[in-house]
Amino acid sequence: MTDKQLNNLLKQMTMEEKVGQLVQLATPFFKGATDRGEITGPMENMNIKEEDIPNTGSVLGASGAKETINIQKVHMEDNRLGIPLLFMSDIIHGFKTIFPVPLGISCSWDLELAEQSAAIAAKEASTAGVHVTFAPMVDLSREPRWGRVMEATGEDPFLNSTFARAFVRGYQGDLEHDTSKVASCVKHFAAYGAPEGGRDYNTVDMSEWMLREHYLPAYKAALDEGAQMVMTAFNILNGVPSTGNAPLLRGILREEWDFNGVLISDWGAVKELIPHGVAEGAKQAAEQAMNAGVDIEMMTSCYTNHIQELIHEEALEEAMLDEAVMRILQLKQKLGLFENPYRGANEEEENQIVLSKEHRDAARKLAGQSIVLLKNEHILPLEATQNIALIGPFAQSTDILGPWSWGGSSEDTITVHAGLSQYVSQDKLFAAKGSDIETSTEQQLQAALSTAQNGDVIVAALGEHSDMSGEAGCRADIRIPEVQLDLLKKLKELGKPIVTVLFNGRPLDLREVLDNSDAVIEAWYPGTEGGNALSDILFGTINPSAKLTMSMPYSVGQVPIYYNRFNTGRPKDAPDAQERYVSQYLDIPNEPLFPFGYGLSYTHFEYSNLTLSNSQIDEDSILSVTTTITNAGQIAGEEIVQCYVRDLVGEVVRPLKELKDFTKIHLQPGESKNVTFDIREEQLRYHHANLEYKSDNGEFELYVGPSSAEGLKEKFRLRKQR
Amino acid sequence: MTDKQLNNLLKQMTMEEKVGQLVQLATPFFKGATDRGEITGPMENMNIKEEDIPNTGSVLGASGAKETINIQKVHMEDNRLGIPLLFMSDIIHGFKTIFPVPLGISCSWDLELAEQSAAIAAKEASTAGVHVTFAPMVDLSREPRWGRVMEATGEDPFLNSTFARAFVRGYQGDLEHDTSKVASCVKHFAAYGAPEGGRDYNTVDMSEWMLREHYLPAYKAALDEGAQMVMTAFNILNGVPSTGNAPLLRGILREEWDFNGVLISDWGAVKELIPHGVAEGAKQAAEQAMNAGVDIEMMTSCYTNHIQELIHEEALEEAMLDEAVMRILQLKQKLGLFENPYRGANEEEENQIVLSKEHRDAARKLAGQSIVLLKNEHILPLEATQNIALIGPFAQSTDILGPWSWGGSSEDTITVHAGLSQYVSQDKLFAAKGSDIETSTEQQLQAALSTAQNGDVIVAALGEHSDMSGEAGCRADIRIPEVQLDLLKKLKELGKPIVTVLFNGRPLDLREVLDNSDAVIEAWYPGTEGGNALSDILFGTINPSAKLTMSMPYSVGQVPIYYNRFNTGRPKDAPDAQERYVSQYLDIPNEPLFPFGYGLSYTHFEYSNLTLSNSQIDEDSILSVTTTITNAGQIAGEEIVQCYVRDLVGEVVRPLKELKDFTKIHLQPGESKNVTFDIREEQLRYHHANLEYKSDNGEFELYVGPSSAEGLKEKFRLRKQR
Repeated sequence: MTDKQLNNLLKQMTMEEKVGQLVQLATPFFKGATDRGEITGPMENMNIKEEDIPNTGSVLGASGAKETINIQKVHMEDNRLGIPLLFMSDIIHGFKTIFPVPLGISCSWDLELAEQSAAIAAKEASTAGVHVTFAPMVDLSREPRWGRVMEATGEDPFLNSTFARAFVRGYQGDLEHDTSKVASCVKHFAAYGAPEGGRDYNTVDMSEWMLREHYLPAYKAALDEGAQMVMTAFNILNGVPSTGNAPLLRGILREEWDFNGVLISDWGAVKELIPHGVAEGAKQAAEQAMNAGVDIEMMTSCYTNHIQELIHEEALEEAMLDEAVMRILQLKQKLGLFENPYRGANEEEENQIVLSKEHRDAARKLAGQSIVLLKNEHILPLEATQNIALIGPFAQSTDILGPWSWGGSSEDTITVHAGLSQYVSQDKLFAAKGSDIETSTEQQLQAALSTAQNGDVIVAALGEHSDMSGEAGCRADIRIPEVQLDLLKKLKELGKPIVTVLFNGRPLDLREVLDNSDAVIEAWYPGTEGGNALSDILFGTINPSAKLTMSMPYSVGQVPIYYNRFNTGRPKDAPDAQERYVSQYLDIPNEPLFPFGYGLSYTHFEYSNLTLSNSQIDEDSILSVTTTITNAGQIAGEEIVQCYVRDLVGEVVRPLKELKDFTKIHLQPGESKNVTFDIREEQLRYHHANLEYKSDNGEFELYVGPSSAEGLKEKFRLRKQR
Repeated sequence: MTDKQLNNLLKQMTMEEKVGQLVQLATPFFKGATDRGEITGPMENMNIKEEDIPNTGSVLGASGAKETINIQKVHMEDNRLGIPLLFMSDIIHGFKTIFPVPLGISCSWDLELAEQSAAIAAKEASTAGVHVTFAPMVDLSREPRWGRVMEATGEDPFLNSTFARAFVRGYQGDLEHDTSKVASCVKHFAAYGAPEGGRDYNTVDMSEWMLREHYLPAYKAALDEGAQMVMTAFNILNGVPSTGNAPLLRGILREEWDFNGVLISDWGAVKELIPHGVAEGAKQAAEQAMNAGVDIEMMTSCYTNHIQELIHEEALEEAMLDEAVMRILQLKQKLGLFENPYRGANEEEENQIVLSKEHRDAARKLAGQSIVLLKNEHILPLEATQNIALIGPFAQSTDILGPWSWGGSSEDTITVHAGLSQYVSQDKLFAAKGSDIETSTEQQLQAALSTAQNGDVIVAALGEHSDMSGEAGCRADIRIPEVQLDLLKKLKELGKPIVTVLFNGRPLDLREVLDNSDAVIEAWYPGTEGGNALSDILFGTINPSAKLTMSMPYSVGQVPIYYNRFNTGRPKDAPDAQERYVSQYLDIPNEPLFPFGYGLSYTHFEYSNLTLSNSQIDEDSILSVTTTITNAGQIAGEEIVQCYVRDLVGEVVRPLKELKDFTKIHLQPGESKNVTFDIREEQLRYHHANLEYKSDNGEFELYVGPSSAEGLKEKFRLRKQR
């Protein structure tokens, strides 16, 4: 359909039909749905009538070619003007083939594999009839209590931005011509990752300076990469709920960033303007969200029931409605739905490609790159000749897909036990649960201790069940549950070497785990191929290379803790620092247990010869930073080499370090490689007190190293010509 | 001296002399000091010469009439123009007679006693030659990890403001005519109470909306009450250190609020612009602080060494220097120092009045009103016929004055043991330490358990030593130290009733203490008369009436927790709330262990008949809110009656409750009294998104009750005429 045809279509639409486009309802609301469940109640609650349904613009959560095709078919018959439905779904880290949770993916620092994971998810989902995925979530977070960190890519604005771009590329690709692609909806605009106290949906408050410098860049990066949609956040931002926040949505997003795509509310967020206490009722909520620029209302009916009235009363202009409708029609046009309302949906193809060997291999590979080795006291990799006692609630659990993996299924999931069985014969592998996730019995414990006696080494598979993180999965205590710590301590008493493998969706306080383990592996939720990937790591088929993208706090009392913090006026580590009057805790260190960028390998890498092409740059020159990295160990491995900069004096305070670039290299034992990073003036820009984004002349420190806490250091100056 | 004379004086001053007025140095720098210690090193480090000293404008920390008179005397001989020194000191909660820490004082909700405590401190300090006290600290805080909460008055902007006024009245009174008064320096401007992670001096970041709505009111209140001086904060605010923050200091403080008094940096804060990373060196630091409007530099020499140079280079205008000097001279004039440089300093009077019976009585009374009864399972008050086993590191400790009580001395301090000895005969009182604060020996423990066997009741005196809070006294674990919890558990095993009395400077995680005690008393640091006041409470001579002014968190993982939080879009307690997708923790409640405004009595009070004079108000009317409070118990007592309002719909989100008024009433057993609060339109104003401060028409809920979590509820409407 041409733009002209779209305009004509809009002209033919009644106001009911227009408002209908702005409505998104879940699958059971639609006639063609396989299971309509008890829909009368919800429809009555929402004051939606059966005759409104054919006008609806989009569907939430439908999937499977059979159902989406059927819903669309019925809809095309019922919709007066033949406007097809948009099918949107939460495809977060895979559709049927589940990849590691995004926090895990980010620890790979591997943009190609991240992009590939999104492309595979899109391919599987598109055959099932999905047009839009509510991903990537790019919310920067420094809050391990917040359960939804598992869906994000960590604490760094630059790393988040690069992953945002990779995911958008993977999902969308050549969206208009490639039906194996889905549109990407970046979320949650804005600053959803900074809820007070780490409690989901809670108050977010920060200066606009902080917002722009740290929290906004990743959303902007996703849009620069072409993300078609944006989702609002549940939280308030400085007193105003994001979903009704005109300065944020119309001001920054639409006007300043020139975003012309579809803006959708999060689930129910328009109506939540009422409990937020800024709207007296549904009508005012509709008015505020429309005024703020929200095009689609998800799963509540403030728009359905009030927009026409608001236009009649001249509280809203019909032009605003037309604009919103046109954005939605344009997205349908871009997806080619007017020509083919079914787009990529194809039951046969769906059955063929989901969980294909190719997809599973990719999932296994990415999981292997995402698993972080935190501690290793000469015990890993294991050898196939050893007797292995696999103990813990995750020993044979399929709950390793993580939150937001509703398309995945347990029967397709490779457990740790199944994975290990590929490496060791059954007579060498002994397994016991030892405890459930949060409870245990004496019987479980005794059985596990007895089983453990058979092992030359104990692999303790511990962690949080997947409901303990994810949306609304917030915890004030970020240790693994007490019963599992008790189990670990009891295992430790056996005097055998222990490798603890952790399955969880947030940074944890791991002090007790470290004290009672000889090696510790952070597996996150590794996905469908988790057991295989983990076994690849345990036996050294894959040499671990992943590095943390969120600091692991010393304890919950240290939160928030992040590497790119400010120096304060009384830094603890200053040469002339007093003992008492410095910024510190009396009872714990200022440093996290494991810093951003940290992760071990079975070999070790040496950094040398940090050389700068110049001691000074200007706007037109490039500072080439070269470092030699040597594999000083006995086996081949990969190293994520990180480049940080510190701006020594700013017009506002500047972080102690900021990640500016990184690369992953592969080195044979004894091999050396030179890695070169190019630094340009634009990478030195920052938001000034008046929010101007620019660089300042002056001195900078530059670090190249294996983590945010280690590395070689040099200095250079910026001296601009203009 | 007249204004004209002051102007003439300024004209006679050389630039060195002017800059000297802007310098504040500690006592040992001055010739007349009793102990000059090793002053050569510090002077060399600061690049200050002996000949600069006579030009210096003020002295930090001197006290005692003998020394201050001597320093002033030498100074008046050495200063070319005979400009007297200003003597400033940290008189925080008493001079020699130490009152409870301010957090404790605030729990009295007693403005008269608070004012009296400041007046007594001023009286004692002024005879010792002090002219200015660096108090009150009015920093709002929601951070129990932050050690300096002990110096503040809690989490509520209204309560903080009323205490700010009371303290300023108490210190300053009729400053110009009453030499028993000292000038008050309100601190720390601004938002020092919101350090990230609760780590002192750390990053502060918030929206200007939050700053104005919650954090600024108490500073403004102190200034409205006439506080003569303001101190800057150590922290950054939105990227810019407060001490160099022109929009904050020149913009809000000087221009918007019209503050013409002296603005002083906190200790070393001008030079700390360098480690903050906004100034390249001392010269730039001086320039930034001067431009921001800081008149006096405390304890560093950026001004001394660079202001003249900056003026010569025309980076600063001499008029700016003149302005700063004139403010300082005006304060000296106001204090009458040109006429009598010694003002109230009088050695004989000092010796007479410090620690007088009158002052001690006032301290005892205020301490009695500050001690909060948190739990009481039919065990308190004690009876003098009972055998009492007093166990714990605070049993006979004089470390109950708290931080910031350098003028107090241990030999003047009434310990718990000494206090109890006033009530029970020696043969009924058995005492043992049981443990030190953070360590213990088996011998200590056994001795304590054996001693405890003698008691009909155990009084466990536990807590934090005073260095565990106060400036830079920050903790990530906010439980009392493990050894004391162990001691308490061992005592509990004896099966005797236990009253735990806590000495500490911050809200604590008290779960284990509560589990192992039949009664719990929060004594804070109660000051010189602490042991007496506590015994008054324990034996019921005083019926406890204090109420918390900071929420006691459930655990450190719940921080920040405060009563006047926002509802969120998914409140847990909504009638239609889902089980999962609400703003909550999975492992702990959303509610604190004890809410703001909570505190028990030995009697109990019933609230009834909440009546409003009208269902509606406008700008000109007063809503009279009357409630009947009845003492339904057997003994006389005092009740702090609290009035809260909730604005149901705002232009921005509004707190769940906001304290609007309170009063303390005394009731005999069975007696009832009506309490009336008047609510006016101006109390309903708040900062809108555009920072405009005004009220909106609409519905409000009004609560009258015994805490922020309980009370009777009514509704009213605001309908403005204009």
